[in-house]
Amino acid sequence: MKLQAFADYPFVDGGVCAAKGFKANGVCCGLRHQALSDAADAEPVEHTQKKNDLAMIVADCDCAAAAVYTTNQVKGAPILVTQKHLANGYARAVIVNSVNANTCNADGVEKANAMCQLAADALQISPEDVVVASTGVIGQILPIEPIAAGIPALLEGLSYEGNTEAMHAIMTTDTREKEVAVSFNIDGKTCHLGGMLKGSGMIHPNMATTLTFLTTDCSIAPAMLQQALSDVVKLTLNRVSVDGDTSTNDMVCVMANGLSGNIRITREDAAYVVFRDALYAVLLNLARMCAADGEGATKLIECVVSGADSEACAETIAKSVITSSLFKAAMFGADANWGRIACAMGYSGAKYDVNQVDVLLASAKGSIIVAQKGCGVAFSEQKAKEILLEDEIQVLIRLGNGRSSAVAWGCDLTYDYVKINGDYRS
Amino acid sequence: MKLQAFADYPFVDGGVCAAKGFKANGVCCGLRHQALSDAADAEPVEHTQKKNDLAMIVADCDCAAAAVYTTNQVKGAPILVTQKHLANGYARAVIVNSVNANTCNADGVEKANAMCQLAADALQISPEDVVVASTGVIGQILPIEPIAAGIPALLEGLSYEGNTEAMHAIMTTDTREKEVAVSFNIDGKTCHLGGMLKGSGMIHPNMATTLTFLTTDCSIAPAMLQQALSDVVKLTLNRVSVDGDTSTNDMVCVMANGLSGNIRITREDAAYVVFRDALYAVLLNLARMCAADGEGATKLIECVVSGADSEACAETIAKSVITSSLFKAAMFGADANWGRIACAMGYSGAKYDVNQVDVLLASAKGSIIVAQKGCGVAFSEQKAKEILLEDEIQVLIRLGNGRSSAVAWGCDLTYDYVKINGDYRS
Repeated sequence: MKLQAFADYPFVDGGVCAAKGFKANGVCCGLRHQALSDAADAEPVEHTQKKNDLAMIVADCDCAAAAVYTTNQVKGAPILVTQKHLANGYARAVIVNSVNANTCNADGVEKANAMCQLAADALQISPEDVVVASTGVIGQILPIEPIAAGIPALLEGLSYEGNTEAMHAIMTTDTREKEVAVSFNIDGKTCHLGGMLKGSGMIHPNMATTLTFLTTDCSIAPAMLQQALSDVVKLTLNRVSVDGDTSTNDMVCVMANGLSGNIRITREDAAYVVFRDALYAVLLNLARMCAADGEGATKLIECVVSGADSEACAETIAKSVITSSLFKAAMFGADANWGRIACAMGYSGAKYDVNQVDVLLASAKGSIIVAQKGCGVAFSEQKAKEILLEDEIQVLIRLGNGRSSAVAWGCDLTYDYVKINGDYRS
Repeated sequence: MKLQAFADYPFVDGGVCAAKGFKANGVCCGLRHQALSDAADAEPVEHTQKKNDLAMIVADCDCAAAAVYTTNQVKGAPILVTQKHLANGYARAVIVNSVNANTCNADGVEKANAMCQLAADALQISPEDVVVASTGVIGQILPIEPIAAGIPALLEGLSYEGNTEAMHAIMTTDTREKEVAVSFNIDGKTCHLGGMLKGSGMIHPNMATTLTFLTTDCSIAPAMLQQALSDVVKLTLNRVSVDGDTSTNDMVCVMANGLSGNIRITREDAAYVVFRDALYAVLLNLARMCAADGEGATKLIECVVSGADSEACAETIAKSVITSSLFKAAMFGADANWGRIACAMGYSGAKYDVNQVDVLLASAKGSIIVAQKGCGVAFSEQKAKEILLEDEIQVLIRLGNGRSSAVAWGCDLTYDYVKINGDYRS
């Protein structure tokens, strides 16, 4: 996937370690082994795969911190604990595991607290300053022993270049690494903001979507950090759908340690706008990476709706199109069956004039108009196929009755999505 | 799929011809051939497949008639024409084609009217007494010539045993025939009610779902017929989802010719209840057939939610579960990953106590409890697999805080769903 660049926000290396003063690391503590041998009648399993499953991100000093959480009524225990810990707007570290979601377990909160305590003891900080997250299978007891056993190695390996090891630890069905960072300038000081994201299935708008961790050396007050995060998530991660399923454990968390030395941002001034746009540059690209690496996906689909009466209308339509199973399957088949688009628009609930809709399909191979004023137009199936065989497709919908627009991101529905989720647990 | 039987409503043969005084027929008029050679750059295609694509159902006398339509804002032209024709509550005949949906075409209404005129001329009735419906690809001009050319054979073959030919003409990606009829008694008179349904993909609650045609020889006033249909559709077809996509052309239409000789039903009396329950017996079974034959489906999934504060709450949860792509893929894999169920319940929007949820999985092979009071319980994976390998699965969810319940029907998500919809048009 090609990164989408923004002027004044050049990309830099380092992901969650791009900002000054953040260390990270990831290790394999053996949670996967545990999960496989957990079932009552399971056979013993040889633990051959050495994939990281436990990570920490640690700041050199106290950070302003903010987060956005899943809207799912069933919330993972780590979500409940982190919400409590971030109530004061500060944090020092993140501890996160994959394989097991620690959700729908009677001892979930106890285990999430234990993870915070383990991290706090290792780092000699307060457990209230630890953000905890888990991702993986729901409804299986989280064994704390492997995590406790993994802490020494995790601590030992913490480094200012540990972003990749950490990222690997949060990947589940993800097939590609997802991290991005930018630099920008506030008060003549160079700031950095970077992040990593996991998420491939159980991804749907109206919440934070996936686990995402962001770090910055910019100095900003917790309330402004929260506002910027909440606003930007709405425009980015909340507009991604892989399968219409809103996870129980979604969280986007940002920590700002202030080490870049800019004047602390405390209100909606010009510096705030610069910071917010940096957040947009990072989260937009993470959102696109998330959609492009949707479970089983072979292509990224971007749906741009313009000419709407309101942004809400445009957003509703764009999300409805990229969420439609029929549309997604047609994209997999590179089939310009634009009736799937018209159908998904029509049941979206958004109000618009169905007789004023133009639809274009575009990619690196060019573009083609498939509908005008709500009706089909003759087009070359061969040209359409050529356009749709690319791995980044744009669906451009013009409503023609307003000035608002919105973008949403999704992916195609493939055999591999079914394969991956037909037996996710093993 | 096993039919669900109801006391006092024995099944009878004949589908839409089970009721006295209804003839039907279906023919192949060649719309499929037309569609394949329609694209600007298409190769000539040999028309080898002789599948029926045009049907009529004709009553011997005037019928009270009622219908429920798709809630999709983009409506097929036939929907608009039929709505107008049924405004007076009476009809004599149905004409319906598959292959082409006659939707999103500038001349759609004109073509739908032309179909009514062709039927009216052939039957020597008024075009306003004709119900018209189309199903198939959206956004391609409907050629009227093959339909006109097919009318003589269609008329010629009309018979009181023509239900199967008619049913074949409305099938698209359907793999199984879907018709059912029952007999019942009102005022000592034997009445019949039967119907046929097409629908496999683009099926989702909150509309009529699919094309369904029902006939009865019961005598009932149009207003009561409409009320019974609207009420029963809510409990049956509106609780089916195959893929979350609400079609543009859905319609359920019922015609009552009164030939059984019962006293005309004009209010909500005991006879009305008997008739409404007959409608329920037929539509429930058609709904289950529809879900079981979902595109690519290998199994029927029935989700029963009980112990809810309200029926609306139970219905919201049941629909959310059977609509979840992750849950559906897990069912395909016979994987008792009940976290998918907990997740779909949580994002459904319904309010319930997440700590009071019990989940059971059941089939002809027995049942197994997988969650109690919101938390996972140890269960035999082997037993769970044995249960889930059956082709009719029940998910039983007890909320434990109320007396209301609801059922919804869906199917698994399979490789074949992706295959079918990756290139639906050809």
